[in-house]
Amino acid sequence: MKIAHIAPLYESVPPRLYGGTERIIAYLVDGLVERGHQVTLFASADAVTRADLVPVRHQALRLDANPLTSPTAAHLSMLHQVRQQADQFDLLHFHLSHFVHFPFFEDFPERTVTTPHGRLDYADLPDAYRRWPHFPMISISDRQRQPLKEANWIATVQHGLPLDLHRPVERDPLGYLAFLGRLSRDKRPDRAIEIARRSGLKLKIAAKIGDDDRTYFHETIAPMIDGRQIEYIGEIGESDKAEFLGNAAALLFPIDWPEPFGLVVIEAMAFGTPVIAWDNGAMPEIIDQGVTGYIVRSIDEAVAAVVRLPELDRRTVRQTFEARFSADRMVREYEAAYVQLMDGLAR
Amino acid sequence: MKIAHIAPLYESVPPRLYGGTERIIAYLVDGLVERGHQVTLFASADAVTRADLVPVRHQALRLDANPLTSPTAAHLSMLHQVRQQADQFDLLHFHLSHFVHFPFFEDFPERTVTTPHGRLDYADLPDAYRRWPHFPMISISDRQRQPLKEANWIATVQHGLPLDLHRPVERDPLGYLAFLGRLSRDKRPDRAIEIARRSGLKLKIAAKIGDDDRTYFHETIAPMIDGRQIEYIGEIGESDKAEFLGNAAALLFPIDWPEPFGLVVIEAMAFGTPVIAWDNGAMPEIIDQGVTGYIVRSIDEAVAAVVRLPELDRRTVRQTFEARFSADRMVREYEAAYVQLMDGLAR
Repeated sequence: MKIAHIAPLYESVPPRLYGGTERIIAYLVDGLVERGHQVTLFASADAVTRADLVPVRHQALRLDANPLTSPTAAHLSMLHQVRQQADQFDLLHFHLSHFVHFPFFEDFPERTVTTPHGRLDYADLPDAYRRWPHFPMISISDRQRQPLKEANWIATVQHGLPLDLHRPVERDPLGYLAFLGRLSRDKRPDRAIEIARRSGLKLKIAAKIGDDDRTYFHETIAPMIDGRQIEYIGEIGESDKAEFLGNAAALLFPIDWPEPFGLVVIEAMAFGTPVIAWDNGAMPEIIDQGVTGYIVRSIDEAVAAVVRLPELDRRTVRQTFEARFSADRMVREYEAAYVQLMDGLAR
Repeated sequence: MKIAHIAPLYESVPPRLYGGTERIIAYLVDGLVERGHQVTLFASADAVTRADLVPVRHQALRLDANPLTSPTAAHLSMLHQVRQQADQFDLLHFHLSHFVHFPFFEDFPERTVTTPHGRLDYADLPDAYRRWPHFPMISISDRQRQPLKEANWIATVQHGLPLDLHRPVERDPLGYLAFLGRLSRDKRPDRAIEIARRSGLKLKIAAKIGDDDRTYFHETIAPMIDGRQIEYIGEIGESDKAEFLGNAAALLFPIDWPEPFGLVVIEAMAFGTPVIAWDNGAMPEIIDQGVTGYIVRSIDEAVAAVVRLPELDRRTVRQTFEARFSADRMVREYEAAYVQLMDGLAR
């Protein structure tokens, strides 16, 4: 199949900084090449890919030292370019949010498919989608669809990671709880801290403090960090992640927002590390209760889950990860969705 | 003429909060109705207008209490709606930035005209514009065009205000210098403070402190505010503006960015208040040197300009404002540009 993938231009593919969307695009695109497809990637020039790259901007927007960039204009330029070359592809796969590509391809929506990588509960999305109701969509979890039920959903394809990306560490975990991600209000690091305090376990927080989160961090979280039981270790890179997640007794994911997937959850599983997550967003779809972790609805339940961590077998966690969340599984499911779309076109 | 105006959806038309673009749209649209045109305004439902309103969103985005809004989706929906009704109009006048409407109207760019209301020196704009090179554009100053010289500019129409909106106060000014606007780094309130200190005059700062500017304000500006010579009076509304600007010896506008117009500058003139402005952006086009104010390039020059303020006649400042910056003049110049476009279509 000749498939074009159209990536957002905010981060490079794969990302040099934080960026789950761009990592998934990188795994998907390389996996499709591996399986013999002719894949073209429209992305910024700093992409590293096995696909044919059409560099539509000299650099990802967030990595650009120029403070005056226009995401709107950059994406419009890219989409104009994609349309000029559209005839060369069997299918155009868009990874853009908020439908900015719909006006460009309204003459042949059936030859496109869109994976929105973010939450969909923005007030303006249903009205906008209703104006282009034929664009096929693929969700990253069933939960993600909920605010936009009426869309033309053709599949859910959960994210996956290369199996050799992370390996369980060879020794016993070190008995601390881990919190990894942005230190924003809706990720609820305060809940993680309370769970650790009441469990009597150490909590290590590895997190980026974004500009938006600075006030929240300094006012609410920093006073609870004592450097002994509750430790803040700053932002960590890919290479430190193995040690941080692999050695943890569990990852805490006590989120307060409808997270459509939560890549870090399956990263933890890749190390054999179970996850204690709030019953929100896609968590119940991703975590096998009592196998790869526990879904909880209160601090009490979370503390009880910590007590029951020894009941979970870390090898089983890793095996479940391999069975459910490999990049290969993800690539094959996308491929199946493409075939389904092509069959529709042929009919 | 049957003219559609398409407003941004961030603020209401006219704005309830800060928003120069939406105020100008309100004056222009009402002025065109006054002159007998059939005008339709696409805007959020909170618009107050003499035109026929097509309410495309229940409320302006910034006034929406829902934190999850999608400006992209909201504008896409509106543009879809405009295109559906496009046949009803002789001309579509867009007040949107960054070309988001171009893909919708690429079949008949000659029946559209676009006034970009912001700065145009964003890295991504030239490349995007080159992909839709036929869209006629109207600048709000000649300086605004500079980063996008190659665009299809058909006119410059400077902003204007209704003559009865502001009236000079009936007594002598109170001898303070005024600073009005956002307290952001590139508006250079620090320069205003230094000018006042070295001139020995009072400076009154009326300004909004946006989220982005809080750190700058607290670290750089707040320590220089002594409450006696340098006074911060907070954000002021339309009704307080008359007193604030009308009683000032001069408005200081020591900007450090290529301001494409600067509405507050002609507001000051409407009160007969002269302006001391940095030689940047559109300032030399708007201020008549030695008549309505002084253009300066250094603190020394600014201090010298303060000394020479008594040489300026406040009645002449008001008269110059009336001659150059009335809403009526603006409306007639836009009308002339429309006629020019219609002539092109008829040929």
